Amino acid sequence: MDNSIKQYIAELNQEIAQTKYGKSPAELYEPIDYLMDLGGKRMRPLLSLLGYQLNKPDYQTAIPAAIAVEIFHNFTLMHDDIMDKAPLRRGEATVHEKWNEPIAILSGDVMLVKAYEQFIKHVPADQLKQVLERFNKCATEVCEGQQHDMNFEMEASVSVEQYIDMIRQKTAVLLGFSLELGGILSGASEKDCQLLYDMGVNVGIGFQLMDDLLDVYADQAAFGKQVGGDIISNKKTFLLLTALKQAEGNTADALKRWIAKEDFDKAEKVEAVKAIYERLNIKAQTENLMKDYFDKGFQQLEQIEGDDLAKELMKDFFEYLIKRQK
Amino acid sequence: MDNSIKQYIAELNQEIAQTKYGKSPAELYEPIDYLMDLGGKRMRPLLSLLGYQLNKPDYQTAIPAAIAVEIFHNFTLMHDDIMDKAPLRRGEATVHEKWNEPIAILSGDVMLVKAYEQFIKHVPADQLKQVLERFNKCATEVCEGQQHDMNFEMEASVSVEQYIDMIRQKTAVLLGFSLELGGILSGASEKDCQLLYDMGVNVGIGFQLMDDLLDVYADQAAFGKQVGGDIISNKKTFLLLTALKQAEGNTADALKRWIAKEDFDKAEKVEAVKAIYERLNIKAQTENLMKDYFDKGFQQLEQIEGDDLAKELMKDFFEYLIKRQK
Repeated sequence: MDNSIKQYIAELNQEIAQTKYGKSPAELYEPIDYLMDLGGKRMRPLLSLLGYQLNKPDYQTAIPAAIAVEIFHNFTLMHDDIMDKAPLRRGEATVHEKWNEPIAILSGDVMLVKAYEQFIKHVPADQLKQVLERFNKCATEVCEGQQHDMNFEMEASVSVEQYIDMIRQKTAVLLGFSLELGGILSGASEKDCQLLYDMGVNVGIGFQLMDDLLDVYADQAAFGKQVGGDIISNKKTFLLLTALKQAEGNTADALKRWIAKEDFDKAEKVEAVKAIYERLNIKAQTENLMKDYFDKGFQQLEQIEGDDLAKELMKDFFEYLIKRQK
Repeated sequence: MDNSIKQYIAELNQEIAQTKYGKSPAELYEPIDYLMDLGGKRMRPLLSLLGYQLNKPDYQTAIPAAIAVEIFHNFTLMHDDIMDKAPLRRGEATVHEKWNEPIAILSGDVMLVKAYEQFIKHVPADQLKQVLERFNKCATEVCEGQQHDMNFEMEASVSVEQYIDMIRQKTAVLLGFSLELGGILSGASEKDCQLLYDMGVNVGIGFQLMDDLLDVYADQAAFGKQVGGDIISNKKTFLLLTALKQAEGNTADALKRWIAKEDFDKAEKVEAVKAIYERLNIKAQTENLMKDYFDKGFQQLEQIEGDDLAKELMKDFFEYLIKRQK
């Protein structure tokens, strides 16, 4: 990773460590500190800084407002983990496991208020309304995406288009907003702010497709979770939905049989479904679509009127993320 | 109830019926419409209109921003009902019962975003930052109050002062903010906005003490819930906490025995605890404190520079609420 990027992340982490949410009651505020301190790449506020820097060099000015995006992101993690009954987050107990569900609900609620508070404190008055309007739209879509994701688990048939739109809402629009926030704060043109947003959405969809691919094709030694987990749980990823759409005859029957099976050997199911993916050329199709989204995002980056070195840094960061996970 | 008040409530209900939150996914937005349509007194946005009218007659200008307070209030109901495992709200199934918990969490989250959106859309640009700063403080305190309330259930000893501060945060500050919002929107002086806020907090604490009294002394025929419910469940109300503080000797022992009992006849427990309250003069003490809070609030109303008829209307409304529940 580029040294500047490391420096930005260090400065973001320093600001996060200094940001206070409240003290009493402890049950309300300790979960916030706990979750914010679990770390993560700080990708979203970092994108705000990188977006800011395209237009203005004093990226540090944007740090406090950028932290609002990280608070919001962690709020969604706290509540999504309850809904998904997830026991672990970044290898540690989730808030509802470590404390309890009511605390995770309420602590998350106050985090959402604190995200707004962080914007209201740190965004200049003449940009506040625009930032909050864009943030509201983003926050609404993130909730819609999570609901669609939960709905898809119960639905018999989900189209590839519906899936792409769900991941756009659930994860990509927040990357778009993070970049756009940097643009707005830097005083970039409306056109460039839109390009930043669109780039974030496209790259964000690309990242999610990459996650879908990795779950099946990652190197187990380097991968944090069980490779093939999505296949085992019939998760409706881009790979499975594409296979279901394209499979015909015996291949379709075999895929549906594996999905319907309740008793099976996990490794055997993973191998069998992978063989079907192989037959249907699913890996290459997913890689191509992922590449299309990344390319589209990078083309939008090129169109932005901004500092060339800052563009290079942003592109390097995205490419680092893409390579690291391969 | 005064005809003007009825008219205001009708106009608020009309605006609420016209306010759209979103359409898809239906699971996210139907619970919002469901809860907002269950009704209620619309007391909070009504207070915003009454607060506005002290300074300016065109109260209708304040309606759209006032709806934000009602959205926020209903968001707290949706999430509190999950935490409290409440099956019913206003006589109908709660959202987590009618749908499920994940939907109630997520639908509540989007409601909180929509409350902010309603402010951002409808509060004039030059008042927006002030309104949002005050709202953030209020929303934070409402969450803190709910957490304290949950904590108190588990704590062996809660002081009367802690209890008053909990009800101040959990319910009274939102009445204060609702009134203050009307003041800010009407362009009232800083001093008057502060008086409006303080009045709302004082009257709000008075209302909560009234609720505590009613649970023990209401006429069962007119009361919606079981009279004595708080005694049966050992709820730490002002009455019980004051009794625990003041009881000595045999009276203290008897009260503690009733609290510790797991098998008991409900009517017998209610009668026994009421007899202890009688001995300790708890009813009159609670009434006196309640009256002190109401009087303080009404004195603050008198100090506000505002239209006398509008003051009279506000006072009439509070007195109607007080009398109706006796």
